[in-house]
Amino acid sequence: MNASEAASSATTPRRERGGRVARREQRSHGQQGHGRPYIVRNIPTYDILSEENLVRIEQTADRILAEIGIEFRDDPVALDHWKRAGAKLEGDLVRFEPGMLREVLATAPAQFTQHARNSANSVEIGGKSVVFAPAYGSPFVMDLDRGRRYGTIEDFANFVKLAQASPWLHHSGGTICEPVDVPVNKRHLDMVYAHIRYSDRPFMGSVTAESRAEDSIDMARIVFGRDFVDENCVILGNVNVNSPLVWDGTMTLALRAYARANQAAVVVPFILGGAMGPVTNAGAIAQSLAETMAGCALTQLERPGAPVIFGNFLSSMSLRSGSPTFGTPEPAIGSMVIGQLARRLNLPLRCSGNFTTSKLPDAHAMNEGTMSMLAAVHCGANFILHSAGFLDGLLSMSYEKFVMDADFCGALHTYLDGVVIDDNQLALDAFREVGPGSHFFGCAHTMANYETAFWDSEIADNEPFEKWEAAGSEDAAVRANCKWKKTLAEYEAPPLDEAIDDALNDFMARKKAAMEDAWY
Amino acid sequence: MNASEAASSATTPRRERGGRVARREQRSHGQQGHGRPYIVRNIPTYDILSEENLVRIEQTADRILAEIGIEFRDDPVALDHWKRAGAKLEGDLVRFEPGMLREVLATAPAQFTQHARNSANSVEIGGKSVVFAPAYGSPFVMDLDRGRRYGTIEDFANFVKLAQASPWLHHSGGTICEPVDVPVNKRHLDMVYAHIRYSDRPFMGSVTAESRAEDSIDMARIVFGRDFVDENCVILGNVNVNSPLVWDGTMTLALRAYARANQAAVVVPFILGGAMGPVTNAGAIAQSLAETMAGCALTQLERPGAPVIFGNFLSSMSLRSGSPTFGTPEPAIGSMVIGQLARRLNLPLRCSGNFTTSKLPDAHAMNEGTMSMLAAVHCGANFILHSAGFLDGLLSMSYEKFVMDADFCGALHTYLDGVVIDDNQLALDAFREVGPGSHFFGCAHTMANYETAFWDSEIADNEPFEKWEAAGSEDAAVRANCKWKKTLAEYEAPPLDEAIDDALNDFMARKKAAMEDAWY
Repeated sequence: MNASEAASSATTPRRERGGRVARREQRSHGQQGHGRPYIVRNIPTYDILSEENLVRIEQTADRILAEIGIEFRDDPVALDHWKRAGAKLEGDLVRFEPGMLREVLATAPAQFTQHARNSANSVEIGGKSVVFAPAYGSPFVMDLDRGRRYGTIEDFANFVKLAQASPWLHHSGGTICEPVDVPVNKRHLDMVYAHIRYSDRPFMGSVTAESRAEDSIDMARIVFGRDFVDENCVILGNVNVNSPLVWDGTMTLALRAYARANQAAVVVPFILGGAMGPVTNAGAIAQSLAETMAGCALTQLERPGAPVIFGNFLSSMSLRSGSPTFGTPEPAIGSMVIGQLARRLNLPLRCSGNFTTSKLPDAHAMNEGTMSMLAAVHCGANFILHSAGFLDGLLSMSYEKFVMDADFCGALHTYLDGVVIDDNQLALDAFREVGPGSHFFGCAHTMANYETAFWDSEIADNEPFEKWEAAGSEDAAVRANCKWKKTLAEYEAPPLDEAIDDALNDFMARKKAAMEDAWY
Repeated sequence: MNASEAASSATTPRRERGGRVARREQRSHGQQGHGRPYIVRNIPTYDILSEENLVRIEQTADRILAEIGIEFRDDPVALDHWKRAGAKLEGDLVRFEPGMLREVLATAPAQFTQHARNSANSVEIGGKSVVFAPAYGSPFVMDLDRGRRYGTIEDFANFVKLAQASPWLHHSGGTICEPVDVPVNKRHLDMVYAHIRYSDRPFMGSVTAESRAEDSIDMARIVFGRDFVDENCVILGNVNVNSPLVWDGTMTLALRAYARANQAAVVVPFILGGAMGPVTNAGAIAQSLAETMAGCALTQLERPGAPVIFGNFLSSMSLRSGSPTFGTPEPAIGSMVIGQLARRLNLPLRCSGNFTTSKLPDAHAMNEGTMSMLAAVHCGANFILHSAGFLDGLLSMSYEKFVMDADFCGALHTYLDGVVIDDNQLALDAFREVGPGSHFFGCAHTMANYETAFWDSEIADNEPFEKWEAAGSEDAAVRANCKWKKTLAEYEAPPLDEAIDDALNDFMARKKAAMEDAWY
């Protein structure tokens, strides 16, 4: 037994193993019944680079930080933090001696709990845990019936409901889609409320302005209590680097707001190779490391010990069209290296997700998406944003792809359980019973293990061709279309304390009343 | 640098690195221009089980072999081989003392060359090499225009041409589809001829009767010369175990024919968990190891030193429909363990491929196919049959999926190159040139590396939504449909020596004249 196997066999929170048991459990709990609150991986991470090569990347990141530096714009407090920590400032440009950021990062926890309002749904982030969250940030939504259109708060709520109803997602996510029918300066309130109202899983708040981050955290305080929030993580904020090598004040102010409240920032560069970073993978990875270390370290200067997640968003470019690409092999294999680097920093990791540039939930979408999603779980990501719904290079949230991706998240539960080795699994008695040339259909070992054997997708059609044809020759997208409609029709909201609901609505009403509508 | 990186950085046969260079080379060589003859992986295998657990599987396989045994039916010579090697016989049932098969297997090569009639296309099988071959054995073919129908020799030739024209496949395969319009007892001649005539890559021969295996090898002798064939591998034969624990005479006679001629048998159980093996993954893996070791060892008793490939074909079952499933998580993760076991035997490995039960080249097909194909490359498979075209649980060969899968094989070339670490890739100069807040579009490093950067799929559409919509909102299947038609229209056969062609045709005519047509 290697270290990975030893550690996880004791700790896997497995209420069940295969798809069938989970589905049975799901049925008995109503459609909001869940599989597990999160996955504890029972297979090791896929480490592809040697110590020597990892050190070369780290040294390159250190030189970028020391010789070129990172600009911190429009945030004097951030500059002041850096100054006091011993960085070298020239205006907004901050340079860091090699090793300095690693020292600052020593106070960040390697693992933390993000609490859900239903404590059975709280997740661990870090170590061997894997948490699947929906896609994040698309302005459009699409489905087979209505095509592509701007997202609304109704779509937003629909996706929160679909995530809540899936036994294979663990987290409600954040800006599942932009609710474009709500004013820009008010929509964070409606989004956070939708997560709280329609889901009892963990969720994310706004980062588009410091005040919106603080509103998001205040709403979490109404749900969890002010003292609890000061001591526990209950909300995440996903902040982006303005790659290359710039941190915008909007982002660092939000990042610091989360850290100050002891909530976790997810620190994510967005490096499109050849545009916001070099065209070579190793260079993009070194840049990502430099930018992310700086962001993560800033959280520790704001509040030592605050939880923070090391994020990654590598991408490449189509040389034919000049367009960004997603779900391609360079970012996929690059993720493995990012994973190794994050573990050397002892920080929880966010990586990729079900990425694609396809405009439809078609073969292209799931080819890229599957490669990208497997990279995320292989590289050891603990928090996988964009696990479900991502289409069109993040521009569209697809109802059908959401359902397909959530189904694949189910398959990944079985995959990450690995190959269990014990006497029952090795089945020597079954061979004794059956012998050569017979079959295992009704044998005692099969009967005893049948219920827990084999992932069984609800989107795949495994019927014989003739039966599939007689039933209408439907493709996976059509089956997914039926599935999301059925799920929404049967959805039941989890209970929410009425006093909390009233307090949230009061808070939102007061905040909205104090603002003019802003539409951009 | 770890061992894997050190070994392969010296040996990778890289005529090029990224998709663009390969495509440029492809254009300059006409459409039959190839990327590389095969891949030498630059990333390590993904090993998921500890030594202790691998030993437990091996011990279970040893007990199956010693206590239950394997039946060898209708092949007295095979039984005689086993007797002389020291196995225990009771009628057809053969039992093996623990360790005996490993000892017999010690003469099998860890790696060998399969020669192509164009020596530039010869492949290495074993070690760090990865060879992609088309799908194998479906009775039906399908395309978007004509739907599903029985395969013909015209379809067969079409797929040989499509494989030959792809820069991302390395091998012409074997029974790409059953040419149902040719009598069963004669079609092996037409199939082998099509591989030789329309491709100059390595190929496979028949295994459905000893005489057909020998005919296949005789045709290879016409191409390569009798002496060359006696000393070198030029043809593969894929033989299946009649799982559980039965080797049929038809298969062992073919297996021995290949071994006797110093050609490589690919030894493959077909274990559908719950039917031909236990429902538990560990037990199915132990069974697979037992059955495959026995088949591989038999080749060494027939001719010590003959090349042989350790094969694997795990599958699971849908608990809803009772149908076999393909491309599911259990076989995918099980492949990693099979890979570790094969390497402990020091044998070249064949594993999975682009498996699915989908009846269409849709999202379902590429979700399962991508998971399955990535498992094959992660587990260290050297020869990946079913790399392109597989649909409907192996019942259909799809023109469109063939093109999609071949394109994904291209992506895997880039993926298996891993993350290269050197000064140019680390790009420190680019950061010095560009600095914070700018972009890398026209910088010197980008210009110098642009041509070799980034895989660029020919099936993915990375254009903006509006441009994609204006061009007809095509999905990936429609683009693949255009692609295979264009490829066939532009196909040019590689040159074939006229004397060889005549000799092959003479051979086939004589063989056919000596047989009545048989249709089953």
